[in-house]
Amino acid sequence: MSKQVSLTGIKPTGVPHIGNYFGAIQPALKLAQRYEARYFIADYHALNSMKNPQELRRMIYEVAATWLACGLDPDKVLFYRQSALPETFELSTALMAFTPKGLMNRAHAYKAMVQANTESNRDPDDRVNMGLYTYPVLMAADILLFDADVVPVGKDQVQHLEMTIDIAQSINNHYNRDCFVIPAPLTSEETKTITGLDGRKMSKSYGNTIPMFLPPKQLRKLIMKIITNSQTVEEKKDPDTCNVFTLYRLFADEEKQEELAARYRNGGMGWGDAKQLLFEAMDEMLAPMRDVYQSYIEDTKKLDDILAAGAEKARPIARETVRRIREATGLY
Amino acid sequence: MSKQVSLTGIKPTGVPHIGNYFGAIQPALKLAQRYEARYFIADYHALNSMKNPQELRRMIYEVAATWLACGLDPDKVLFYRQSALPETFELSTALMAFTPKGLMNRAHAYKAMVQANTESNRDPDDRVNMGLYTYPVLMAADILLFDADVVPVGKDQVQHLEMTIDIAQSINNHYNRDCFVIPAPLTSEETKTITGLDGRKMSKSYGNTIPMFLPPKQLRKLIMKIITNSQTVEEKKDPDTCNVFTLYRLFADEEKQEELAARYRNGGMGWGDAKQLLFEAMDEMLAPMRDVYQSYIEDTKKLDDILAAGAEKARPIARETVRRIREATGLY
Repeated sequence: MSKQVSLTGIKPTGVPHIGNYFGAIQPALKLAQRYEARYFIADYHALNSMKNPQELRRMIYEVAATWLACGLDPDKVLFYRQSALPETFELSTALMAFTPKGLMNRAHAYKAMVQANTESNRDPDDRVNMGLYTYPVLMAADILLFDADVVPVGKDQVQHLEMTIDIAQSINNHYNRDCFVIPAPLTSEETKTITGLDGRKMSKSYGNTIPMFLPPKQLRKLIMKIITNSQTVEEKKDPDTCNVFTLYRLFADEEKQEELAARYRNGGMGWGDAKQLLFEAMDEMLAPMRDVYQSYIEDTKKLDDILAAGAEKARPIARETVRRIREATGLY
Repeated sequence: MSKQVSLTGIKPTGVPHIGNYFGAIQPALKLAQRYEARYFIADYHALNSMKNPQELRRMIYEVAATWLACGLDPDKVLFYRQSALPETFELSTALMAFTPKGLMNRAHAYKAMVQANTESNRDPDDRVNMGLYTYPVLMAADILLFDADVVPVGKDQVQHLEMTIDIAQSINNHYNRDCFVIPAPLTSEETKTITGLDGRKMSKSYGNTIPMFLPPKQLRKLIMKIITNSQTVEEKKDPDTCNVFTLYRLFADEEKQEELAARYRNGGMGWGDAKQLLFEAMDEMLAPMRDVYQSYIEDTKKLDDILAAGAEKARPIARETVRRIREATGLY
């Protein structure tokens, strides 16, 4: 039996941090072990909020280089840019004809914008562009175009995926044929929350992140800023409540973890020592990724080639889906 | 200096009647004398309201055969199906990012649907699908993709064209370059109203139309049904207030018009005679068109070939526009 298909959409949003890596990138890359994994950079989605062309282009390269550096193997999985598949946009147009406007009105993301506007006494649709409003339809096209059986989604995307399912089912029902594979949400059992510099969840909005590809010196400097308690060197310490140790777990193997935990519990270890060990473990894991990332960023032609080859492999799948919907609708 | 470009969108809506011919088709075909004329069949627009695939396909063939029968020369003008140009849909997606939702909320067609729903105590967006709601954006893509300088529009479409202009200008301004040719509306000086069987404007909704390609027998039967007054054969008649004569003007040359007008004024002519003359004039003009129409409908492969060749000619223009918008946005 052939493997099920998973599809992961990647938003181009600047250089990722450690939290993104363990929380999103690594789990998404692991899908390739169980699924026929497909990944795409959602660059037309990004246009809705990023109108600076140089910046948008840079973000696309950064995110492509990141995923390749993190281990995405373009020879084994499908990796392409949304914008390279014009079939996406034709399918999106076709789906519009089957999407009740009421469905879009109920989208959480849109409702949140309306609420914020209303609370600020602005027009409900102030600063809402049609790209943001129709986002769930384009997302449905992304997913249905590639016959995804499963789509890894965070909590905030579950509703959008349900809309995809709604639209797909109503088309399949209307034409009484399987135009589309009906996707299922793949919610990860354990949503890993990564601790930031200040002990809160690592997040850009808290300003407590550790970027993935910092040069070693800057990385060390940042780690030294991790907030710890005021225990003296002599005091015995609890690794389980320590931000430094929580991060260390992500980078060191079990043996090393035991070793450092013992030093915590025995006393006589200062925070500087723990942080230095964290830096070393981190750098050991990140250095090779950083090198790969850097090599791509310095040679974007290579990125272009990889993404173009991915699009080339993706097109027959996209064409076949569009053929099915054209045949069903009569638009062939 | 090269000619300006005109673009005419053709909605596939069943076999046209005499009113469509003189009111829309003939004026649109005359554009080719002054403009580099481009014509497309808006088949994805039609999907919004036509979900029966056989019917939709038939309507597309009928409308293509009609325009060819009416004199559209695919060797001299561009003639293609919207669905054959995937660039349309990519451009539409790009435009969405620059279209304020508030603009769509103000579209007359949408507002009319909302009003009808509200008056019937239904949800304002009841039976509004996203294809209908986003129609002005797709229409903007149709127009901007083909560098149209002028777009012939009826009164009901003026606002939609203004939206196209708004969106195009805001993109040109934002990126500070001429991504798009800014189109202008072309409103015809004389909007020809054609009289129907009952003397009211010929319109499907009145059920008073004369279909263009009726077989002669049925055509004659229909003409005999034209409502006239109850004057006797002997009475002198006024051609200028007669439905039969009004239609006769469209088909007979001036000499013949004078001749019949004289018979009206002299008295001694019955309505049956006038109608018979109208039928003969009509059939003389329509018979060759009907034959061409029929030959295409019986050989849809020929239609497919003509439309495919048109799309082939259209694609370089479409590709060039998409190249410009990709370069401007950074999505290349």
